[in-house]
Amino acid sequence: MPTLDDIRQAARELEGRIHRTPMLTSSALNERFGADLVLKAELFQKTGSFKVRGLLTKLLRLSATERERGVITVSAGNAAAALAWAARDAGVPATVVMARTAVQAKIDAARGYGATVELVEGDLMAHYERIKDERQLTGVHPFDDEHVITGHGSLGLELLADRPDLGTVLVPVGGGGLISGVATALKLMKPEIRVIGIEPQQADVVSRSLEAGAPQQLGTARSIADGLAAPVCGTRNFPLVQQYVDQVVRVSEEALLDATRLVMSRTKLALEPAAAAPFAALLEGSIQLDHATVTAAVVSGGNLDVSKLML
Amino acid sequence: MPTLDDIRQAARELEGRIHRTPMLTSSALNERFGADLVLKAELFQKTGSFKVRGLLTKLLRLSATERERGVITVSAGNAAAALAWAARDAGVPATVVMARTAVQAKIDAARGYGATVELVEGDLMAHYERIKDERQLTGVHPFDDEHVITGHGSLGLELLADRPDLGTVLVPVGGGGLISGVATALKLMKPEIRVIGIEPQQADVVSRSLEAGAPQQLGTARSIADGLAAPVCGTRNFPLVQQYVDQVVRVSEEALLDATRLVMSRTKLALEPAAAAPFAALLEGSIQLDHATVTAAVVSGGNLDVSKLML
Repeated sequence: MPTLDDIRQAARELEGRIHRTPMLTSSALNERFGADLVLKAELFQKTGSFKVRGLLTKLLRLSATERERGVITVSAGNAAAALAWAARDAGVPATVVMARTAVQAKIDAARGYGATVELVEGDLMAHYERIKDERQLTGVHPFDDEHVITGHGSLGLELLADRPDLGTVLVPVGGGGLISGVATALKLMKPEIRVIGIEPQQADVVSRSLEAGAPQQLGTARSIADGLAAPVCGTRNFPLVQQYVDQVVRVSEEALLDATRLVMSRTKLALEPAAAAPFAALLEGSIQLDHATVTAAVVSGGNLDVSKLML
Repeated sequence: MPTLDDIRQAARELEGRIHRTPMLTSSALNERFGADLVLKAELFQKTGSFKVRGLLTKLLRLSATERERGVITVSAGNAAAALAWAARDAGVPATVVMARTAVQAKIDAARGYGATVELVEGDLMAHYERIKDERQLTGVHPFDDEHVITGHGSLGLELLADRPDLGTVLVPVGGGGLISGVATALKLMKPEIRVIGIEPQQADVVSRSLEAGAPQQLGTARSIADGLAAPVCGTRNFPLVQQYVDQVVRVSEEALLDATRLVMSRTKLALEPAAAAPFAALLEGSIQLDHATVTAAVVSGGNLDVSKLML
């Protein structure tokens, strides 16, 4: 499990390589929810999501041999571009296995950062394993990895550095990568802070894992919040979520859509539905806010499929 | 015609009442256009567009009698919410005449700021004139007004205060309100700066007016950049555009849509199509950029119809 020193070390390594994203406020959202909210605008992060924090941390800690041979991951979403960017930044060759049906903009993004993109049909994981072995590449899991978790923890440090008075932090949840790092950092610094995760009802693998007491898998996980549609809860993430996260709540697809539109119209941030999950929970009334303290919502990414914006 | 002192006075009156919006940069856009761009993020302005600058300036300069009786305007767009907000801020009762078919979110916004909204069918101007006379209200034109122009000039002051090295400024053009104020401020301070306006081919009343040498009217003006679909060029705006604007270029509807999606995906700003007009012109290659100097694009507003965001 990462210590606070590990996380601080990762934050130092990331400094100057990634953005220190701003904390924003919106009087319109405060009025709407009767709350004192701050938004961690991580959609302005390199590649448009928090994922570069953990992935770059991971790449910076590879051995010289591993760096030379290169890395490989499998992704349909933000992790593809984030790994490609981080690999370029760290000077490591990267291969990304993506489905032939992936959104073209996401394929282009990974290629644009210089990654080798392998477009495959059928079983992505089988292709991933085969290519990894053939080319002697180091596999990088987008969230089930201690260094990735440690890197994501840097976001927790920034939250408390900017607002030491934080009472509650709301974090979107997919496979548990972001929240395990952020909650570890926050609770090690300020144990009385509340950390609440939000995941789609239709992709609720972390809630199910907590209920079962062990990491679970879903047969299918589909949500308009595609960034949260992980079918597995990470085995390294799970014990940290168990220990440090106060609560994980589920949100409906309808609330995710409503929240995306609401936050976009009020803040003018082009957030993706995954990033609207905290506001979806506020819309559904499934989180009790402490109105005496400040609540931070992590706006985790902005990689909307803009081809779906009809005007 | 407003002097630089008039504009500076308006800026002082606005200070603390409206936002000083940031100048943002995007390495992705700079790469895409081979340019050194700064974005004036006026979409973060109160009510989500620049319009509060001029309208609040206007209201602060009314006589005591006019303030007491109240003001009225006719609008289907950003001016409705902006006048309603400015009127609440200035403590003046406001009436807004809107078509019954107006977007519900825009009706709600004007009402939310406390304006009396008159929803009418048929000839909007006839209803406007009748209500104005019956209730002895002061009519406020959203752009064809010297005080409105003066207030919009404050944006020009901010551009040069933040980036004294600006070589070119790109401004979306509807009826000429914003660009007449901004160009006046800029040219009075730095005559060698280039000011370029961009308007939709389908709503090109300012280009036609410049070609004809006098303010023109259009039978219809429809564009996905609804904020730019003014059917008239203001009579007070026209001579300032003639004198201070170097060039006005037209952009296609397709380029407006492509530019909105491009800028949103690269910057994560939820801009409206009107605000993407400068980038539409860059996509179409109709503006020659001076690559040795900095170019500012005014991202004029963010009042997207979010109900059109399909996910």
